[in-house]
Amino acid sequence: MIITLTTDFGTKGPFAGVMKGVILTINPKATIVDLTHDITPHDIREAAFVIGDSFRYFPRRTVHVAVVDPGVGSGRRAIIVKSQGMYFAGPDNGVFTKVFSQAEKVVSITNKKYLLPVKGPTFHGRDVFAPAAAWLSKGIKPENFGPRIEDPVMLRLPEPVLKKGVIEGEVIYMDRFGNAITNITGEMVAALKTKNPAIKIKRLYLNLADFYAAARDKRPRAVVNSSGLIEIFVFDGDAGKALGIRVGDKVRAG
Amino acid sequence: MIITLTTDFGTKGPFAGVMKGVILTINPKATIVDLTHDITPHDIREAAFVIGDSFRYFPRRTVHVAVVDPGVGSGRRAIIVKSQGMYFAGPDNGVFTKVFSQAEKVVSITNKKYLLPVKGPTFHGRDVFAPAAAWLSKGIKPENFGPRIEDPVMLRLPEPVLKKGVIEGEVIYMDRFGNAITNITGEMVAALKTKNPAIKIKRLYLNLADFYAAARDKRPRAVVNSSGLIEIFVFDGDAGKALGIRVGDKVRAG
Amino acid sequence: MIITLTTDFGTKGPFAGVMKGVILTINPKATIVDLTHDITPHDIREAAFVIGDSFRYFPRRTVHVAVVDPGVGSGRRAIIVKSQGMYFAGPDNGVFTKVFSQAEKVVSITNKKYLLPVKGPTFHGRDVFAPAAAWLSKGIKPENFGPRIEDPVMLRLPEPVLKKGVIEGEVIYMDRFGNAITNITGEMVAALKTKNPAIKIKRLYLNLADFYAAARDKRPRAVVNSSGLIEIFVFDGDAGKALGIRVGDKVRAG
Repeated sequence: MIITLTTDFGTKGPFAGVMKGVILTINPKATIVDLTHDITPHDIREAAFVIGDSFRYFPRRTVHVAVVDPGVGSGRRAIIVKSQGMYFAGPDNGVFTKVFSQAEKVVSITNKKYLLPVKGPTFHGRDVFAPAAAWLSKGIKPENFGPRIEDPVMLRLPEPVLKKGVIEGEVIYMDRFGNAITNITGEMVAALKTKNPAIKIKRLYLNLADFYAAARDKRPRAVVNSSGLIEIFVFDGDAGKALGIRVGDKVRAG
Repeated sequence: MIITLTTDFGTKGPFAGVMKGVILTINPKATIVDLTHDITPHDIREAAFVIGDSFRYFPRRTVHVAVVDPGVGSGRRAIIVKSQGMYFAGPDNGVFTKVFSQAEKVVSITNKKYLLPVKGPTFHGRDVFAPAAAWLSKGIKPENFGPRIEDPVMLRLPEPVLKKGVIEGEVIYMDRFGNAITNITGEMVAALKTKNPAIKIKRLYLNLADFYAAARDKRPRAVVNSSGLIEIFVFDGDAGKALGIRVGDKVRAG
Repeated sequence: MIITLTTDFGTKGPFAGVMKGVILTINPKATIVDLTHDITPHDIREAAFVIGDSFRYFPRRTVHVAVVDPGVGSGRRAIIVKSQGMYFAGPDNGVFTKVFSQAEKVVSITNKKYLLPVKGPTFHGRDVFAPAAAWLSKGIKPENFGPRIEDPVMLRLPEPVLKKGVIEGEVIYMDRFGNAITNITGEMVAALKTKNPAIKIKRLYLNLADFYAAARDKRPRAVVNSSGLIEIFVFDGDAGKALGIRVGDKVRAG
């Protein structure tokens, strides 16, 4: 059984490694995959996008663990979500917003039988989510961890809107190449049936290229990326720096 | 069997990956866990803290490998430590100081049968410690690797002291959030039985919060962290930058 | 079966993790090892050196995947190389230059049966190379993926030359310690039979040390490193910064 980890721990400390030790102590046969440990610290929204975009590439019954948890130690609940044949374990802070709409059930983790003795109020990744994931991967059903809940915390994620034939969206993620990923899908743009649609950001109108290397110069362009989203790039360059793009910047397509 | 790796190699080069290739060639069934490859280069003390704080979360018989090894190629010995049901393999430079006190035995690795042919004097992670760990994980006993030694190198790690009802300690680690971890334990502070104990650093007296999110503003505070240690933090901020804290800074609790 | 990954994705996004999900969906028994995800973006030459230097430490039948792929989506072919008992899967851009000379066969990946339905033109790591590697690791032969080709793209990698008793080479890689790795081998220098050979870079003549810790001061020196290559270092310091060394800088030995 596979368990994925998405955290904002970084890789300088042993925190992710310690979670793996806890998991493998409970289920020595677990296969653990790091999605990323470099979520911007406390950025629940970024983690929600990363998990929502990635989980479907794993086999059924995979357990996806998220530990981006600024509220750790406060009253916030710990939850398990069952959705689309997979399990998700993490804090009840909206980090699983992208999978709630198709969720079969959500439970609050309260059964101490499946947790480590909690030593401090600050590392639920180790004391709560790692053991919960390990027991899930061994076949323990969500309902054994605690009562069902109907009101998990949801993030209001920015959704693109169509206004007078123009799609208004925004930048949701900057990757390490300096590419700016927007929340506008290639399908939405195609549905406009505009000839040579343009992507507008910061007063610039960008062409839609077929792929990165189709760009023969350093002019910024847009492309439909591997998630099906409109992405702004400079070939062999850094669009984020070149144009001063930040997460939240408005983008229009039409 | 599990093998953990703690190094200062970083992740830019293939060094950790090559160690894994060597391990899996000898024992294809080994499960390898990265504790961290981002120890500050040559910082044996940091590695000693990281390993001392993490090893107990792994199952018995786990082999913990450390390669923070500024003296590689010199006369320094390579050692295997058996302590608390686990094995430790690395250079004899004090990196295992935290586990020596309960060690059952320490041996010097000299038996060439369990090493790669050493090609150069600079990569014992690949040529000595990876193969030693792989053979340990296959059940070869420490005594097969070389003679027992009684005088492994020990670091003098800073220990907090109690003076006139005040605990004097210091900052031992800065994490990626900018939190400053001290060597003063929550238990020591509790034993003082002071009402509302304060943590003093750089002329500031900080309150002890119950958990990170209990802080409702950006004032620096202290908390008992997940290792049971007093940690100085700014909620959703960077205490290290805000206060100019460095490893070695004096801290008092009382 | 082992599959190694070498990419320029970095670790901020979930890209490497998604590739692992695809691999494990096809072959749940695959053992996946990260060689590095921190190749300098689009630096095919760096990836060629990293793979050429590392693959031999893995067991036979290992599949080595490289995704440093600035031309993704263009007409460039996707290839599988069988060489020295191992498999290599990646773009046909020269990233496997170091293993072509002993290659048994090279095929172009065209059989859609072994690929994911390609959703966009930008992520062949997920849609082409991960599934190809997973099927290779399950025993599917290279010839099942597509036709044999005889003209894979080769990089012209800088080779050292011997001129009048002096070896002329260059810096090919800077590691995270600031060490400068050259393409001159220790064996070439030894063959000169010069007494006390010197390494010249930027008008400095450096001595050849036996190992890093043999240096007792902060003077730059050279050493034969763990790959058998001449490497310029400052003990407990950063030679790259101290001397302003960059990849491509000329080096002489004699």
